[in-house]
Amino acid sequence: MKQHLEPVEIVRYENGATRSVADLVSVEEPMGIRLKFTEAAELTTKDLSITMRTPGNDGELALGFLYSEGIIRAYSEVAEVKLEVNDNDAWVEVTLKGNRTIDLANLERHFYTTSSCGVCGKTSIAAVQKACTVILPQKKWQISQEILRSLPEVLRKSQNNFEYSGGIHACGFFNLEGELEALREDVGRHNALDKLIGWSLQNQKIPLFNGVLVLSGRASFELVQKAGMAGIRMIAAIGAPSSLAVALAEEFDISLVGFLKENRFNVYHGADRICF
Amino acid sequence: MKQHLEPVEIVRYENGATRSVADLVSVEEPMGIRLKFTEAAELTTKDLSITMRTPGNDGELALGFLYSEGIIRAYSEVAEVKLEVNDNDAWVEVTLKGNRTIDLANLERHFYTTSSCGVCGKTSIAAVQKACTVILPQKKWQISQEILRSLPEVLRKSQNNFEYSGGIHACGFFNLEGELEALREDVGRHNALDKLIGWSLQNQKIPLFNGVLVLSGRASFELVQKAGMAGIRMIAAIGAPSSLAVALAEEFDISLVGFLKENRFNVYHGADRICF
Repeated sequence: MKQHLEPVEIVRYENGATRSVADLVSVEEPMGIRLKFTEAAELTTKDLSITMRTPGNDGELALGFLYSEGIIRAYSEVAEVKLEVNDNDAWVEVTLKGNRTIDLANLERHFYTTSSCGVCGKTSIAAVQKACTVILPQKKWQISQEILRSLPEVLRKSQNNFEYSGGIHACGFFNLEGELEALREDVGRHNALDKLIGWSLQNQKIPLFNGVLVLSGRASFELVQKAGMAGIRMIAAIGAPSSLAVALAEEFDISLVGFLKENRFNVYHGADRICF
Repeated sequence: MKQHLEPVEIVRYENGATRSVADLVSVEEPMGIRLKFTEAAELTTKDLSITMRTPGNDGELALGFLYSEGIIRAYSEVAEVKLEVNDNDAWVEVTLKGNRTIDLANLERHFYTTSSCGVCGKTSIAAVQKACTVILPQKKWQISQEILRSLPEVLRKSQNNFEYSGGIHACGFFNLEGELEALREDVGRHNALDKLIGWSLQNQKIPLFNGVLVLSGRASFELVQKAGMAGIRMIAAIGAPSSLAVALAEEFDISLVGFLKENRFNVYHGADRICF
């Protein structure tokens, strides 16, 4: 097994038939980047970034990040690249040569927040569980597979009214009858979902319990985290889910559908909410 | 014109013919989220996040972000949502009601860096220009359109050796003869490119001047920024570019190709590097 693929057991619906099959999802796991350098004869250690990445080439990832951010300009500036990857933690520590002055304040000014980011998948999931205090009804609803399969076309058609560029993500919230309640679009998929959640807050629709969130693209950890916070019980993505998205959906008991098409889809968790 | 679409002049190649046409790209622009709240009778203002978003529903975006991060739990906690969007700046300021204690330290611990993020497209581009110090040869090379059109298939086939999940981004660097020099994959497109740049650093291949960066997905500001830092002169994306990606490619004179397929592609900037 390649380290960037993870086996999962799924329920596959195809042309009227349902069966349990083994499948693979892309691994998504957090990794921290730590910088060590000497400034005015003093050794400074600074945690720069936590990114959700697919394991493999982790040293390259850290070096490329430092280069893209203008912190290093050549590999010759680097004394050591140390990988510390175990079950509880994944860090790449880059130590720079000689004396350096690095404008950390400038870096800190431009951060993008995600409070759910731990340095391993487990701490990320634990952080989400802790933060999520939404209280949901106990009732377990079902949606029919016919309605579920009809949603991508409704999303696409509703999106077409607004969209001619071919380069935007959409997310829609549908009720259990398959009616679109809200659609939001953005070049960033997390933004499209934040907009939808903002809409639900402003319109007293939260928690978004009775219905399905349809994503035009893939389902990542970040999107499942946001959906979980909003009380969403089913996510159906046109694209693939990542390993951490599946793990979080299981932990939250959110039904997670991937590769949703008119004649087929995969269920990664919570097939009991679908009426076949 | 919808505010989330921007007109661009492109060169379209289709089935052997080339013509200049008007097209539309999705708008990508930075927006800051600012939180105001009263803690122990003192008014606190905190800039929380800068995100690259498509304009529209900006208030919803800020509210959904605050809710997803667990900072607010209901719309009734919000006193005011103020949008300040002008040519130089885009901020949404959310003021909370009553007295609040907010664990800002916890939020700050989990930041993701992008030093190139200004609060308007112009400051973002200026920040990139300032940070980019790579010195490039003056020589202007050309790649043939036949070779260019062959690259997606090579990328896909090379990716297929590793990839069964259908949910991963790839980026490949090809030389001007169309040979793949390196391929990196990740669930995060920025990570895949960081890995590629890390590879080039470690192998003394930087600047990546003579060749084409092929992206399996869309081209965003962040990807063009990273490519620019690495001295890349041509980006060819299988998907669409955003408005800010086009603007940055123009500023850096990076040739930017989008919707690259076997029989057609669009050139958003720098068609002079393609031999038709």
